[in-house]
Amino acid sequence: MTSLANEPELLSRTEDGIAILTLNRPEARNALSVSLLGALRGEIERWSADPAIQVLIIAGNGPAFCAGHDLREIRALKSRERYEEVFARCSDLMRAIRRSPKPVIAQVHGIATAAGCQLVAGCDLAVAESGARFATPGVNIGLFCSTPAVSLSRAIARKPAMEMLLTGDLIDAAEARRLGLINRVVPAASLAAETLALARQIASKSSAVLALGKEAFYRQAELGFDEALRYASAVMVENLMQADAEEGIDAFLEKRKPHWHD
Amino acid sequence: MTSLANEPELLSRTEDGIAILTLNRPEARNALSVSLLGALRGEIERWSADPAIQVLIIAGNGPAFCAGHDLREIRALKSRERYEEVFARCSDLMRAIRRSPKPVIAQVHGIATAAGCQLVAGCDLAVAESGARFATPGVNIGLFCSTPAVSLSRAIARKPAMEMLLTGDLIDAAEARRLGLINRVVPAASLAAETLALARQIASKSSAVLALGKEAFYRQAELGFDEALRYASAVMVENLMQADAEEGIDAFLEKRKPHWHD
Amino acid sequence: MTSLANEPELLSRTEDGIAILTLNRPEARNALSVSLLGALRGEIERWSADPAIQVLIIAGNGPAFCAGHDLREIRALKSRERYEEVFARCSDLMRAIRRSPKPVIAQVHGIATAAGCQLVAGCDLAVAESGARFATPGVNIGLFCSTPAVSLSRAIARKPAMEMLLTGDLIDAAEARRLGLINRVVPAASLAAETLALARQIASKSSAVLALGKEAFYRQAELGFDEALRYASAVMVENLMQADAEEGIDAFLEKRKPHWHD
Repeated sequence: MTSLANEPELLSRTEDGIAILTLNRPEARNALSVSLLGALRGEIERWSADPAIQVLIIAGNGPAFCAGHDLREIRALKSRERYEEVFARCSDLMRAIRRSPKPVIAQVHGIATAAGCQLVAGCDLAVAESGARFATPGVNIGLFCSTPAVSLSRAIARKPAMEMLLTGDLIDAAEARRLGLINRVVPAASLAAETLALARQIASKSSAVLALGKEAFYRQAELGFDEALRYASAVMVENLMQADAEEGIDAFLEKRKPHWHD
Repeated sequence: MTSLANEPELLSRTEDGIAILTLNRPEARNALSVSLLGALRGEIERWSADPAIQVLIIAGNGPAFCAGHDLREIRALKSRERYEEVFARCSDLMRAIRRSPKPVIAQVHGIATAAGCQLVAGCDLAVAESGARFATPGVNIGLFCSTPAVSLSRAIARKPAMEMLLTGDLIDAAEARRLGLINRVVPAASLAAETLALARQIASKSSAVLALGKEAFYRQAELGFDEALRYASAVMVENLMQADAEEGIDAFLEKRKPHWHD
Repeated sequence: MTSLANEPELLSRTEDGIAILTLNRPEARNALSVSLLGALRGEIERWSADPAIQVLIIAGNGPAFCAGHDLREIRALKSRERYEEVFARCSDLMRAIRRSPKPVIAQVHGIATAAGCQLVAGCDLAVAESGARFATPGVNIGLFCSTPAVSLSRAIARKPAMEMLLTGDLIDAAEARRLGLINRVVPAASLAAETLALARQIASKSSAVLALGKEAFYRQAELGFDEALRYASAVMVENLMQADAEEGIDAFLEKRKPHWHD
């Protein structure tokens, strides 16, 4: 659980078409330094462009998933321009997750706080071990979690989001699932295996279809109902013109497994 | 549970001011063929214009509520123009439900999948028997449930919606209620009776007020907070100018039952 | 629990930087007359401008938190202009809560119905005793709860909101919490103490940071994802330029309590 002096702050490996990105600053509870924000974004974009990869997992080494921004680093910046850079990098990361054509799953253990909670809220899916806890505690240190609020308030209802933001209190994994912040709660011992199993299940689908569907989901969510229906209908038609829909429907009607082209 | 050769694919009957539309392609698990989409929309628009009808129920005959689009039919279309027609018809149906001045209740048994799940999500209310299950499994056949996602993502939180869309897994009735996709879970044996009881309760209100309120609900939901307050305030004033508000408030103050005009 | 003849319809007191506004028309179940709407808005704006106040609580005397608008008064108005005034006043109140730089907590006992339920939904947070019940029953008296729907539909999912609006049925405190309408359910005997404890916890934060965070939360919620991220990032930079962020981060890194300037 401890990092060696020369280990990189982000580890990256692949397994069966799944890229597993592991935050590796265990001594700093995986605080998102400017360089780690950039490295994580870079790896997400790299694997997003790799046709051999279907799904991404973001995990963390050490006692915590992620404790947010690196406050010691931020405190040393002491200029508006440098502050702007931190949040530009963080926003770039959040957009990279959203824009990735691959589903991104957060694998959460220990705590996920502030920008760490934002990371969980901003992933497409999240699996947590039963002891995981979540908070947006910036209000306790005079720095309201305004950027985490963007993804948090789009994941859960307003009143519980406001309570997390105004109190800074931790919520446990069961409550996080109840609220919709995470999808599944599993025993700590099987967290990696369960997250990988979910990733594998999704990786068995057509990557072209996952890409089309993920983009459509977030785009339609920001439209009015009528416009969303029109847009989504056009997406369905494009989808039906793809080889994988033809193959998938044929396989279904013939009661056999599909063989995806894309 | 089996349909006769010459039975219509949609049955329609009324009871105490309630129109009950029953999908009647049991052998196809009520798959929404182009003709059934048109028939259902037509009946919804017909009853929506009937002053004797207060509430609509959409139910299904056979083992399933609705298994979505008719894949065999879709697979035979083989042209962009025909695909566009399918989704235009489906969107017309969803808009007809939304625009109907009468509340529309889905009465769900068995499975409600893909466009069948969309139908549930798109109704104003939904009652399901305890064994009912819901999924958006298009991803499994290379055809992402992008149009179902429109109503699904407006009914439930994003992460569980994404999980349904990316995995295609079924969720049970209890989970569907927990997420907000359906309103009530009842024993299978009393599904029709419980749905009818809910419809009857709503049918006892003023139809003019139901129409005004339903329209206001969906319109204000797409506005910003300030604009929504302004719009809803104007609706309240119009409502107060109606005879049924005058009668309703008087009846309340006089502790008697109201007699609606409209 | 009974009011004296000459008591004001709104009571206001402060305790440890918290302003407690108490609806005081117990014989009318705290119905929101035009004058009470104005008084409540006035007190909210007054305390919102007071640097000694950090958090506001809205409570009620008598058997109910609030039974909504004063129907007897409304029924006597009998003109469009007067109706418009009622809803303009009510909207002014809802906007005053939203725009207040101080968090506003509803402390709910008994029933909160119609505009009373709107008041709960429109506060930033809500605590209720376990016997509290909530409804939007306007549909029963020919006056659909269109303005309550604005805050209700932004607090809870659409299908349960529609069920409340179409049936007018009461839901209990546990269900209200499950849906996200309220944050906490506590025993009736400790309602005031628990609400005050929550207010005190929030009052211990920097008021400048609470003000900035509350405004940012509601503004970003109405923007698209990308625009919300840009806006919230700019808010974070402004926040970091404030003295309280400097102090808060230093205190955190030095493991001591912060001393807020603002």
